[in-house]
Amino acid sequence: MTAALISMQISLPRGMMAELVRELGELGLIEKLREIVGAAGEGVVAGIGDDAAVIDLDGMNYLLLSDDAFLDRVHFDLRTWSASQIGGKAMAATLSDIAAMGGTARTCLVSLLIPASLEIRDLEELYRGLVSMAGQFAVSIVGGNVVSAERLGLCLTVTGHVEKTKVCLRSTARLGDAVAVTGDLGRSEAGRLLLAGDISLAAGHERAVDSLRQKHLAPVPRLKCGASLAGAVDVGAMIDISDGLAREVHHITLASGVGARIEESKLPILEETRLVAQLAGIDASHLALGSGEEFELMFTLHPAEVEIARSAIEALGVAFTTIGEIVPRDAGVRLIEEDGTSSALAPEGWDHFRA
Amino acid sequence: MTAALISMQISLPRGMMAELVRELGELGLIEKLREIVGAAGEGVVAGIGDDAAVIDLDGMNYLLLSDDAFLDRVHFDLRTWSASQIGGKAMAATLSDIAAMGGTARTCLVSLLIPASLEIRDLEELYRGLVSMAGQFAVSIVGGNVVSAERLGLCLTVTGHVEKTKVCLRSTARLGDAVAVTGDLGRSEAGRLLLAGDISLAAGHERAVDSLRQKHLAPVPRLKCGASLAGAVDVGAMIDISDGLAREVHHITLASGVGARIEESKLPILEETRLVAQLAGIDASHLALGSGEEFELMFTLHPAEVEIARSAIEALGVAFTTIGEIVPRDAGVRLIEEDGTSSALAPEGWDHFRA
Repeated sequence: MTAALISMQISLPRGMMAELVRELGELGLIEKLREIVGAAGEGVVAGIGDDAAVIDLDGMNYLLLSDDAFLDRVHFDLRTWSASQIGGKAMAATLSDIAAMGGTARTCLVSLLIPASLEIRDLEELYRGLVSMAGQFAVSIVGGNVVSAERLGLCLTVTGHVEKTKVCLRSTARLGDAVAVTGDLGRSEAGRLLLAGDISLAAGHERAVDSLRQKHLAPVPRLKCGASLAGAVDVGAMIDISDGLAREVHHITLASGVGARIEESKLPILEETRLVAQLAGIDASHLALGSGEEFELMFTLHPAEVEIARSAIEALGVAFTTIGEIVPRDAGVRLIEEDGTSSALAPEGWDHFRA
Repeated sequence: MTAALISMQISLPRGMMAELVRELGELGLIEKLREIVGAAGEGVVAGIGDDAAVIDLDGMNYLLLSDDAFLDRVHFDLRTWSASQIGGKAMAATLSDIAAMGGTARTCLVSLLIPASLEIRDLEELYRGLVSMAGQFAVSIVGGNVVSAERLGLCLTVTGHVEKTKVCLRSTARLGDAVAVTGDLGRSEAGRLLLAGDISLAAGHERAVDSLRQKHLAPVPRLKCGASLAGAVDVGAMIDISDGLAREVHHITLASGVGARIEESKLPILEETRLVAQLAGIDASHLALGSGEEFELMFTLHPAEVEIARSAIEALGVAFTTIGEIVPRDAGVRLIEEDGTSSALAPEGWDHFRA
């Protein structure tokens, strides 16, 4: 069970560092840091780039650990977001990593970087946002610290647990598995486009606007779906969609040593998302494939268990859609278009849309 | 075992936020955030302002969790520190919180905020510093993330464990307990004064200079001392000295509802520290009482167990000194001077010296 692996997520910085990181590549950088870190200790089980670190507690249960950092102007904008929204989304994003392991979240530590201009009531609102989201999943904030900084920042660490037999890694997709997702795709990016103000929907579309903005500003982690899936079926691999579906597919296929075929026509895209894509002049599938911060789950499972999984997810009021299958590594990662032609699916994430 | 408490450490920010925090006071701010956080979940055991959060795992063992944030120009200076020193000290400071609970550290998550100007080799050096310090205590770095930022920053989270009967809180000092410390005091601040370049020692003092600089740049957490003490004697309360002894005494007396008498003549201050204090025109005791980032342990214990504790600590090659005793709350926190007179010991920490 001891593996010399580390869990690592990297958001490409801008500027010189970005250039240097680009030279190495994200995986090259992870490999370099992994070399420095060396062999993990007894009982440490974790996949490279997996959503959370996995620690063997007692042979029966795993402790899950994940941290995430969020900075003003990188992950949110204090000028246009409420402090409560920032807290809520940061907590949702961090909890989503526990969902992706099939686990139950338990506690959270909060480190805040606070600019001098922030008022106490903003700090309180930020905390209310954190606490409200945590409370939905019975997660306790058990500690933290506050330090001064130029920009608002949050570093959150969540702990969770999962039975050893139910942990869902990125590295365990199996040939022939179906690929499925919870919910719908693209709404977060469509919401971001609306909030950026470059496009707007005509009167009569208030509900659509609300749906899209909410998905971007106040996403909800799929903790119940993740734990329910891990209990109901023999999940192959699982990941949460934080960098865009296309990139997440690559994370799973690289970690598992397999390929994948994703069917464009099956991508679950709501009408309001298609409308925004059309107004923005972006292909709706392209938007859905690249939309980050969806915090939906993508997972693989035996085709024979698809209907069991569908029932488990739909029982939680969440949509369930199979979008493709796991194929041999040599077949690569391909997007099957509606006319039957296929093309390589590039690992483009939300960076692509912001570039 | 369920308590509505959170572990919280606050470094006063500067500027408007600082003013607002000062109005509330540190304890007022913690109290406010504690109100928002509300009751902790089942199995969460943690003292306000304790060094780590304490989670009941299985009735026999506690999981310890602590996070710390470190920013360029606040906690270190990238212009004068090596990346390796920054990584090592940040890791030492975070591990010190586990030492203060009498625990054994196990894993660490590393979130890095990386400025565009940082080179890959600096990032590697930073990681080498983190890994080297973690490795000394068999702590595995099990995950993390890297995001772009204007200034270098590190958010570290450590996990550890301790037997339920051996956990050392801040809130459990007992009347009549002796107060003791590991190591010596004031060397970190003396090292900082030397490094700042305002004073310098004459030729022939190279060893002293090295001892002081090393203590400031490369402190070592007292994990072995903490675990050894927790095993050898019935520790009352324990804390690590990160904000200066005077402030830590107040943390323990406030949490435990007691007072304390600290004897000035007993403070363990090395000759080289006294020399720097003299050159800087600061009273050596004052310097020792306010010096932060010592990462020594202060603890209380039954007077009958002092010699057992001394043997346990000295067996690790570390000095052990009793510096005072726990008295009723009404007697306050007092410093007993050499001539027998006493004065109130103000909770002044390293902020005082930097002001």
